[in-house]
Amino acid sequence: MIKKPLKDIPLRRIHIRDRFWDRYIHLVKEVLIPYQWDILNDRLEGVETSHCIQNFKIAAGEASGDFEGAVFQDTDVAKWLEAVAYVLEASSDDDLETLADETINLIGRAQCEDGYLNTYFTIKDPSLRWTNLKEGHELYTAGHMIEAAVAYYEATGKREFLNIMESFADLICQIFGPEDGKCHGYPGHQEIELALVKLYRVTKKQKYVELAKYFIEQRGTGENYFLEEEKRPEYKQIFPEFTGYDTKYSQSHIPVREQKTAEGHAVRAVYMYCAMADLAQIYGDEELLEVCQTLWSDMVRRRMYITGSIGSSGLLERFTTDYDLPNNCNYSETCASIGLALFGKRMTQITKDASYMDVVERALYNTVLSGIALDGRSFFYVNPLEVWPDNCIERTSKEHVKAVRQTWFGVACCPPNISRTLASMGQYIYFTDEDTLYINLYISGTVSAELAEGSVEFEVKSDLTNSGHIEIDVVKQENSASYNLAFRIPDYVKKYTLLRDGKEQTGCRLEKGYLYIGNITEGETKIVIDFEVPARFVRANPKVREDAGRVALAKGPLVYCLEEVDNGANLPAVFVNCNQELHEKYEENLFGGVTTIALRGMRLTDEKWQDDALYGERENVFQEVELKAVPYHCWNNRGAGEMLVWMKEWM
Amino acid sequence: MIKKPLKDIPLRRIHIRDRFWDRYIHLVKEVLIPYQWDILNDRLEGVETSHCIQNFKIAAGEASGDFEGAVFQDTDVAKWLEAVAYVLEASSDDDLETLADETINLIGRAQCEDGYLNTYFTIKDPSLRWTNLKEGHELYTAGHMIEAAVAYYEATGKREFLNIMESFADLICQIFGPEDGKCHGYPGHQEIELALVKLYRVTKKQKYVELAKYFIEQRGTGENYFLEEEKRPEYKQIFPEFTGYDTKYSQSHIPVREQKTAEGHAVRAVYMYCAMADLAQIYGDEELLEVCQTLWSDMVRRRMYITGSIGSSGLLERFTTDYDLPNNCNYSETCASIGLALFGKRMTQITKDASYMDVVERALYNTVLSGIALDGRSFFYVNPLEVWPDNCIERTSKEHVKAVRQTWFGVACCPPNISRTLASMGQYIYFTDEDTLYINLYISGTVSAELAEGSVEFEVKSDLTNSGHIEIDVVKQENSASYNLAFRIPDYVKKYTLLRDGKEQTGCRLEKGYLYIGNITEGETKIVIDFEVPARFVRANPKVREDAGRVALAKGPLVYCLEEVDNGANLPAVFVNCNQELHEKYEENLFGGVTTIALRGMRLTDEKWQDDALYGERENVFQEVELKAVPYHCWNNRGAGEMLVWMKEWM
Repeated sequence: MIKKPLKDIPLRRIHIRDRFWDRYIHLVKEVLIPYQWDILNDRLEGVETSHCIQNFKIAAGEASGDFEGAVFQDTDVAKWLEAVAYVLEASSDDDLETLADETINLIGRAQCEDGYLNTYFTIKDPSLRWTNLKEGHELYTAGHMIEAAVAYYEATGKREFLNIMESFADLICQIFGPEDGKCHGYPGHQEIELALVKLYRVTKKQKYVELAKYFIEQRGTGENYFLEEEKRPEYKQIFPEFTGYDTKYSQSHIPVREQKTAEGHAVRAVYMYCAMADLAQIYGDEELLEVCQTLWSDMVRRRMYITGSIGSSGLLERFTTDYDLPNNCNYSETCASIGLALFGKRMTQITKDASYMDVVERALYNTVLSGIALDGRSFFYVNPLEVWPDNCIERTSKEHVKAVRQTWFGVACCPPNISRTLASMGQYIYFTDEDTLYINLYISGTVSAELAEGSVEFEVKSDLTNSGHIEIDVVKQENSASYNLAFRIPDYVKKYTLLRDGKEQTGCRLEKGYLYIGNITEGETKIVIDFEVPARFVRANPKVREDAGRVALAKGPLVYCLEEVDNGANLPAVFVNCNQELHEKYEENLFGGVTTIALRGMRLTDEKWQDDALYGERENVFQEVELKAVPYHCWNNRGAGEMLVWMKEWM
Repeated sequence: MIKKPLKDIPLRRIHIRDRFWDRYIHLVKEVLIPYQWDILNDRLEGVETSHCIQNFKIAAGEASGDFEGAVFQDTDVAKWLEAVAYVLEASSDDDLETLADETINLIGRAQCEDGYLNTYFTIKDPSLRWTNLKEGHELYTAGHMIEAAVAYYEATGKREFLNIMESFADLICQIFGPEDGKCHGYPGHQEIELALVKLYRVTKKQKYVELAKYFIEQRGTGENYFLEEEKRPEYKQIFPEFTGYDTKYSQSHIPVREQKTAEGHAVRAVYMYCAMADLAQIYGDEELLEVCQTLWSDMVRRRMYITGSIGSSGLLERFTTDYDLPNNCNYSETCASIGLALFGKRMTQITKDASYMDVVERALYNTVLSGIALDGRSFFYVNPLEVWPDNCIERTSKEHVKAVRQTWFGVACCPPNISRTLASMGQYIYFTDEDTLYINLYISGTVSAELAEGSVEFEVKSDLTNSGHIEIDVVKQENSASYNLAFRIPDYVKKYTLLRDGKEQTGCRLEKGYLYIGNITEGETKIVIDFEVPARFVRANPKVREDAGRVALAKGPLVYCLEEVDNGANLPAVFVNCNQELHEKYEENLFGGVTTIALRGMRLTDEKWQDDALYGERENVFQEVELKAVPYHCWNNRGAGEMLVWMKEWM
């Protein structure tokens, strides 16, 4: 039976002060939010025009001109507002709040009388509303708007945005549903389902979660809605590349409960799985939870990169087939890893199984962070594991792979998604139930949690990515009853020690990846955990054809890579023997402080190929080389060059 | 200074009777030509409709209906007729000749009064003639028709087809050229250039070669013709995928003489290079010959697969960049290797350098033969070097890679191109100059050559692909003067012996890959050559990132591969140590008789992965395995399965 889920701790109660994470968290407020604001207002030169705010002004009748941008352009402002909400919840900022309030007011003015809100259809042709669910992204856009409104309400207590979106949600409830006369469609890009659950949770209005359930249950049943919709006279195609639509692309090929493999567009898939997990929990739906577990398992056991990225096809950002994980032409969209983290978080909360958080941590520390440059001003959509800049060109099938982060994108889904994820990182770190505080990620800072018998406040000092040494100080405890702490023991930790006020603890209960420390009472002051996190060689299941005979380097949650700037060009010609000691070094001045790994390798030279021949009966001539690996997420912060995660192994 | 080129021997003087080649050569007359005839007439079930003959009937006003098929559909009948011509030249066949004559007569009836001939434009909209050179393929189609007409004239002496095409060529000469008022365009797909040279050679009319020269010289000069053409009101787009046209695609980005790297669509490129070589020879144009040499060198030293295939991008069948040779997502079109062979043949004839023939042989024995099944009824366009059928699916970037040969294609360029190539194989085997017979390829059969002082007739018995033993018997000699034989010493032959009437010859002149045996006089009867052609490991230049740490197997001209049916699945998990003896075995009952190679390998097992994990710190566990390699061109004649050319090396 599905029990009460683990709860989030409000962001205002979590303060991150972490050597590894600070640079990223600070980026959100100091760089990303102002930078994105400038972009939304078309104030940045050399960056693709967003037109986002202008679209709202036009829709509000306060400016003239035509809609510009993608059909889901409104979501840029939604994700911006959601990130702003999380930032404001963590620390107030009057100027920023004023800016957000004004933006929300503009959104309200752009809303139609009946509650409808979408600048594309309002400006372009209101008669086309809901006629192209497959491509129109109206429900997707509404979903992001609702998420932002809920976040803003939770952060500030202000209802204006929530009211706007409730009114739109009410309209959507009138239009969609099982009843005769209503539209029996569902979103072409899932997102509103999880947003409606959030809206239900703050408003307690059952109809929102009912509609989310309807969208999920209706999907893939009977004649495919999107193929039927195409035949109607009012249907107008938006994306020519969707001709010959594959219903798997939007996970609408079969009913959701019958889906056993992760298929189609990866972001659509994981956003849908999030809603399925939410609904399984709310309705106590064991069957649906089992579907979630099956799909999760398919992803993380057969279709996920070591970096926690998913969607291995460069063509339409899709899942492909089991163990098909090419390293140099994958899509591995940053947003898909964000969705994977959102899904894994929910699964942990429902099942109290920390192994989901192993994957969440993998996705956040590697692919999500790879998505953003250390200066916060350029971004990767696509996160390859092997890059040779020379062939990431227009005339190969690798054009989608970029050898350098891009300043901004016309379809700007990833940058603002990274922004809202970093701003809400706190929600991945801790969960609570009545008497236990769960620590999932080891990120320094303070947290105060409300447990059943009172509140507690901790300070965490974590050096996870370097020494693995973690200290947890009880700062304040406002009750006399005892409570428990549950520490996630990461999958990569083979050995650890835990001291409780100086005494080593053994025999504690380890259940589904959480180590439970019971009976914490007033007066206890310190827990010290030492995770052994040496640099390690990791191999892939030999069924992953691309990685057979290769090894990757990792340390703690971080996957490492070789970069050309440290190791010269032609990284695929480098071989490493795994029977060697790895040398770690904390480099204060590299990427703002990072642990690098030194190792020895053998480089295949072209000594026997001085005649410039292409093929021949030549000997291999190797040269011993010193190699240096850096964390994957830091790659391409020192100019363009080759990068490689999976190194060839010297057998 | 460019001297007289080596000459072809007419096909009627060459009779192939070769254990290796017979099955393919016989296929042309016995299977391919009747099979293609049925297809041209839409008589085969389960095969895409060709509509080719029907189009000619409609254009002739003898049937009603609309044009169907590709814009260059007429070339299917052209290539069929060209193959028929070569077959008739080698051995007469009254029924086949009657069928060809009737088809030619139909073509004549479909010709417009002014000489214009192209069923697409004649049926669809004659007013659009020459308005879309980029996509319309009118000149390309005319080129194939001219090639067929020349071949048919040479085979039968009949002028009807030649007259038809001369009349069209005359019209083209009126329309295109440097003069004011003429169209200053050039073909979107090169082909007519080399055809006009052939037409010039049989008719001796200078204007044809002048127009070929104009097309070559005009290409890529000034404002790009194709981009200019698009702007005209009469321009109508045919292929939507050509939006945002890249002029490199058709080698029109810069003037031909400035081109230093092989760029764009591979077939277009090599057809153009053929014409450039022809023109260099005819006009004694050293500069143009040097351009040909530079482009050849770029292809075969940096952009060619070990199988002699070119065009490594799955996207638009293009060249990409130096050393970018992915094995599992390449295009490597069969037609491009045919074009490479045509180009190499011309270069040998001009330069008397046999090294071009090394590449020609590589292309013919591997990629061209891989293009056709052993039963002659299915075909590969795309010739990958590594196939995992599971991921050659719609949702990867490898959809173009087919794990099984296809029965026929809508765009049927490759099958009839293979057909005409096999039917004209003789022209690759021998060349002559005044006093020397050049033997390029070692294919059994008889040849009679006209040399300056009389004719000679030989019988060749070659076992090149197995023992390397070759016997050349002088059958007849109709003069008393002496002459020379030149034997190509293939690049893969490290040791050989040559016996002349039983006595070993040493100290013969070896020049540019040809071994010259002088003063052959009446009464000499036998030359015996033993090439050492043991199975061998071949490596790639380490700059080819995809092949670093890998080896391929070859024997004589043949590249070998592993197939799943012999070696189990997951071939990328197999490693081979190159310090081992290779065991060859002639298998009478496999593929109609073929030499296979047995070797030992180590297979990475999933013993440590029984928990179905995807990544982990697991040991490699290997199992010793016996491997069997078969010639690459034979792959996929025993059902679908994995295939691999470049095996991982055990270092």
